[in-house]
This record gives sequence, structure tokens and C-alpha cells, in this order.
Amino acid sequence: MLNSGFETIREDGDAVVILDQTRLPREVAYVRLSNVDQAAHAIRVLQARGAPLIGATAAYGVALGLAENADDTTLAAVCAQLAATRPTAVNLQWALARLDRVLKALPVAERRAAAWNEARAIAAEDVAANAAIGQFGLSLIEHAAARNGSANVMTHCNAGWLATVANGTALAPVYAAHAAGIRQHVWVSETRPRNQGHLTAWELGQAGVPRSLVTDNAAGLLMMRGEVDIVIVGADRIAANGDVANKVGTYLKALSARAHNIPFYVAAPMSTIDFACPEGVAIPIEEREPEELGIHAIGLADCPARNLAFDVTPAELVAGIITEYGVFPPQQLAQLRTQLKPK
Amino acid sequence: MLNSGFETIREDGDAVVILDQTRLPREVAYVRLSNVDQAAHAIRVLQARGAPLIGATAAYGVALGLAENADDTTLAAVCAQLAATRPTAVNLQWALARLDRVLKALPVAERRAAAWNEARAIAAEDVAANAAIGQFGLSLIEHAAARNGSANVMTHCNAGWLATVANGTALAPVYAAHAAGIRQHVWVSETRPRNQGHLTAWELGQAGVPRSLVTDNAAGLLMMRGEVDIVIVGADRIAANGDVANKVGTYLKALSARAHNIPFYVAAPMSTIDFACPEGVAIPIEEREPEELGIHAIGLADCPARNLAFDVTPAELVAGIITEYGVFPPQQLAQLRTQLKPK
Repeated sequence: MLNSGFETIREDGDAVVILDQTRLPREVAYVRLSNVDQAAHAIRVLQARGAPLIGATAAYGVALGLAENADDTTLAAVCAQLAATRPTAVNLQWALARLDRVLKALPVAERRAAAWNEARAIAAEDVAANAAIGQFGLSLIEHAAARNGSANVMTHCNAGWLATVANGTALAPVYAAHAAGIRQHVWVSETRPRNQGHLTAWELGQAGVPRSLVTDNAAGLLMMRGEVDIVIVGADRIAANGDVANKVGTYLKALSARAHNIPFYVAAPMSTIDFACPEGVAIPIEEREPEELGIHAIGLADCPARNLAFDVTPAELVAGIITEYGVFPPQQLAQLRTQLKPK
Repeated sequence: MLNSGFETIREDGDAVVILDQTRLPREVAYVRLSNVDQAAHAIRVLQARGAPLIGATAAYGVALGLAENADDTTLAAVCAQLAATRPTAVNLQWALARLDRVLKALPVAERRAAAWNEARAIAAEDVAANAAIGQFGLSLIEHAAARNGSANVMTHCNAGWLATVANGTALAPVYAAHAAGIRQHVWVSETRPRNQGHLTAWELGQAGVPRSLVTDNAAGLLMMRGEVDIVIVGADRIAANGDVANKVGTYLKALSARAHNIPFYVAAPMSTIDFACPEGVAIPIEEREPEELGIHAIGLADCPARNLAFDVTPAELVAGIITEYGVFPPQQLAQLRTQLKPK
């Protein structure tokens, strides 16, 4: 059953309802978004999170923002407000640019309905793209399981269905392998400071996929001990040269995977590839509130803290990018652009 | 002022008083240890922690355990009880073996007083050894600071004075550099799951050393961006071939340091070197309660978790071991043994 029966985002009359990811896994709760302010807030505070879901939520946010007026000024203001919520995931900009392009070509009176339609299309495409990612990634897990009869998969952060409209990106192959009866076990890293690994542990549990929670620090020893067969992570932005920005800590896992000859894959729809960005160093890295490290609660209120939310994994450490069109070496992305024009 | 005026362990009549490290940084509180059960408990729950301090606490634990009887049976039982508390830090076994050797050679009636004396000697030697480590490490920080006028030091876990009787191991060079007026800034990693980085942030703050708290995950990006000049960590056990067991996550930092040509040093007294252990793979790695990952509190009570407390950094990634006798390439440890016999 898609997303174990949950919906990360759905329409509800003139509003949008999202699963509140800040309350999971303790509680399954929903938030109703009725205007663009609420949509921007939901993205900023991580009620809706994960690069693909941020894109879809922003698209619906534009529709919400055009409720009373859809002229050029309003459209520009709504897009600017949503674009300012988070800097790293390119799907946000991609979705906003797509709506801006589609809506600007239409008379003002038709824009509001068109915005809902385009958001709906983006959401539907995300479901389909991730299903395809699952199928392309399935063979990689199958291959990893062939040696010992079972695959030990390691992931980072949450790139499951919670991070998307449905199916997930990094976890799409895991779910496809689960459906295909392939034996596997997933190492779930806490993913400090926001602990999105808890979301991954929860969502894999809902689907009955065997998993174990570990600290981010444990990745090196587990790989050294041969307890990891394959690493699959998501991405927030992939540069044209194949460098990958993803949740901070991804790069350390990639370095360790390389040291132990473990294949390291990145799963992402084409909407996560930023062909305008030449290389990883040009990707803006979000720096969030130091308080996410809990310095007040632990009695370190006066201690400076830095909360870097993403890091960059060089293309040379990536065995392949699992997209909806197939698995490609990161170095082939640039030529892929001319062959497969994303919408 | 030594340890910013605090004492991690001190004698108090027939008892021993330790700083309760489970309550820092929120609260400075002390625990009185009156018998071997309390000493063993303090080590097990990390009230006293850090390889050198564990050694000293265990030595005092033997003295406490011989209060009523010091015959061979009691001595063996007391040593066995303390040895069973934690498996990885070799200083624990080293201290117990030393007391066992010294006491067994004495008449039963003299053993209790001798145990106190030997524990006192171990504590005093730790203070002196770590002061020497500080002086030998100082030049490394001086060298790192020479390029930009200030050194960005990264450490992991807590290997400061809190982890020792005084002065610290990895932080001893930092304190020596601070006293020498060298400009520096320390990156302090949280060190999940027990967050000993909070102890490091607190203790550096007490001494007025500039520092910033970051997640364990941030190490890769910080190194990639050139914001780390030198890494210095402590050790729980160093094998004869130079492989280093230290708090889990150390290995990932070492891999990243290598990728960016950043020197990675390990600071440890000779009591941390286990010449009987040929290589890292033979070092027992403590696995602690999964609940330290907080699975119940976060609503994942049914989720399996693994809590590996240490990892192993291969000697080839270590630029040098900073000991009380000087800085040595890890590969030279074996020959060092014949030259410098530890007590």
C-alpha cells in the first residue's frame, strides 16, 4: 500500500493538508495549510521536509497564495516568499520557476486554477518518478543481497516517502526490494541535529522492513566490520558535474564507503539536478539556528554553535545517481541533460 | 589554574569524591564513593569517564574494596568486579594489573595502605604525564597556527581534564597553547549518543578557550571548507601496531582529515598503549544499552538499535601519537616499548 496508507500532502477543498513531520514518530498529526504564510512556515520549520516534498508543498503554496489575486506582482511576491524558506534543496526553486513560467503565460483570471493543476501535476510526477527510481534501484539491492543472501543497506537522514509525495527516493529501492521479497536490513542513522533518522526508522517500521537505529558516528565501524553492503542516500541538489549536496553527514558516509569499497548511490528525481550549478562548491549550504543543537537545554547557553544543515559529496565518491530514467554515473549527468529534458 | 579549579577525583578520609560527569554541564555536583560497588557503578554509568580517569578511579576502587579484608580472594574479587565495568579503555586493566602486582607482593596487613598509596601514585603520574603531553603537543598547535595566525583545532568526545585526573590528553596541548598565548579555536563535536562534546564545550568555556559546538556530522564539510587545521583526539586503547580505539565517530574524522591533508593526532599516556594487543581488530569494542539512543522517549520503543561506543582508526591515518615521552609515528610504538618501559 502506497506510503503504508499515509499521505504526506493532499488537497482538502481550498486548502492543503500535510502530515506534521515535526511530531513524528511520537504522534501522527496533520496540519492544514490555508494560505501562503502557512505553507512557507511549514517548509521553514520542517513540518514538510525532504527535497521533493518541499517542491510539491511550494507548488501548492503558490496556489494558496493566489486565492485573492493572481496578478504579476502577487505571483512574484508569493514565489519570493516561498523561495526564501530554504536555500539548499533545488526542487523548491525548480517548482517555483515552473509555476511562474506556466502561470505568466496565462491570463490573470486563469492562473489560480492553473496553479492548482500544476501543483497537482508536480505531485503526480513525483509519485511516478520515485516509483521508477525504486525499480531502477531494486536491482542494486538485489545485487548487494546476492553475495550473502541478504543486503545490509545504509542510508542517511530521511529520503523515504515522508520526504516525497510518495514512494521516497533513497528508500524507494528498499521498498521495491521488500515487495520483491529480497531479504534486507537497513542501518538508520540518527541524523543530528534534527534526527530525521527517527522518521526513517518509523516509516520503515510501518512497512515492516527490518532496520536498526544507530548514531551517525557508527557508520565507519559498521563499514569496517563488513556490516554494510550498499549505501543509498537522497539529495537536495546535484550539481551539473555530479557533486551532491545532501543532509550534513552524508559526505562522511561516502568517504567511509570509499575506504571499504562499498558502493555509494544517490537516489533523486531529475528535478533535484541543477544543471545551472557547475559544481558542489557553488551550492548554497543552509545554516540553521544553533539552538537546534539544544545549547540552552543542556546548560551551554553561552556556547557558540554552528548548525550546518548540508554538506557536499564529490562526484568521484558516487557510484551512481538513481533517477527515474535509470542509474547514471554522476559524470554523465551533463550529457543526460540534452537527452532527457526535465519538465 | 589546574582544571580551572575543579577536581575530577580526590581523597576524602576513607572515601573518594568524584565530579559527577553525568550532571555536567547543567550542574556541578560531586559523588562520594565509599566502597567498591559505588566505584564500579560510577565507572559503568559514566559518572567517572575517560580512559585515564577510569584507570585512576579503578585504582582507588581497589583501595575502597580492601577496607575490611585484603586477602588474595578479596583482592581478586575486587579487581574482577572493577574490570567488568567497561571493556575498551585499557587503562582500567592496566591500573588493576598494577595494583594486583604490587599488592600481591605484600603481606595482607600492609595491602590496604599500599593500595591507597598506589592509587595516589597512579593519579599523580597521570597529572604529570598529561602535562608533558601538553608540552609536546603545544608545538603542533603552534605550527598549525603559524599559517593563518590562529589554529582551528578539531577534537572528538571529551579528552580534556574531565577525562583525566588533571590536564587532559587531547586538550592538554590546547591548554598549553592557550597558556602560551597562541590564538586558537576548537571545534567541539556533540559526540552522540552520550554527548561528551558538551563536557568539552563546558570545560573549554571554563578556561576561556574559544570554541564552537557542532554536530558530529559537520566534520566533513568543515574540513572540506578549510576550517580545520589540526585534529587531536584521545584514545581508549592503542594497539601495538598503532591502531587506535577511541569514541565512536573518531574514525570518520580521521578519514575526512586524510582526504583533506589535515594532520590527525592522538594524545594518550603510555598507560593507554596495549602492547599485548597486536592490532585494532583485536580491541574489544564496548556495546552499550540501545536506550542511550533514547528510543523510548522518541516513540520508537519497538525499533532495534545498536549502540557501538568505540571505533578503530587504522594507524595509517594517524600522523602521530602524542605521549608523555614525545610525539611518535604510530608505527614506532612497538620499538618504543623496549626503550621506555611504562610502570
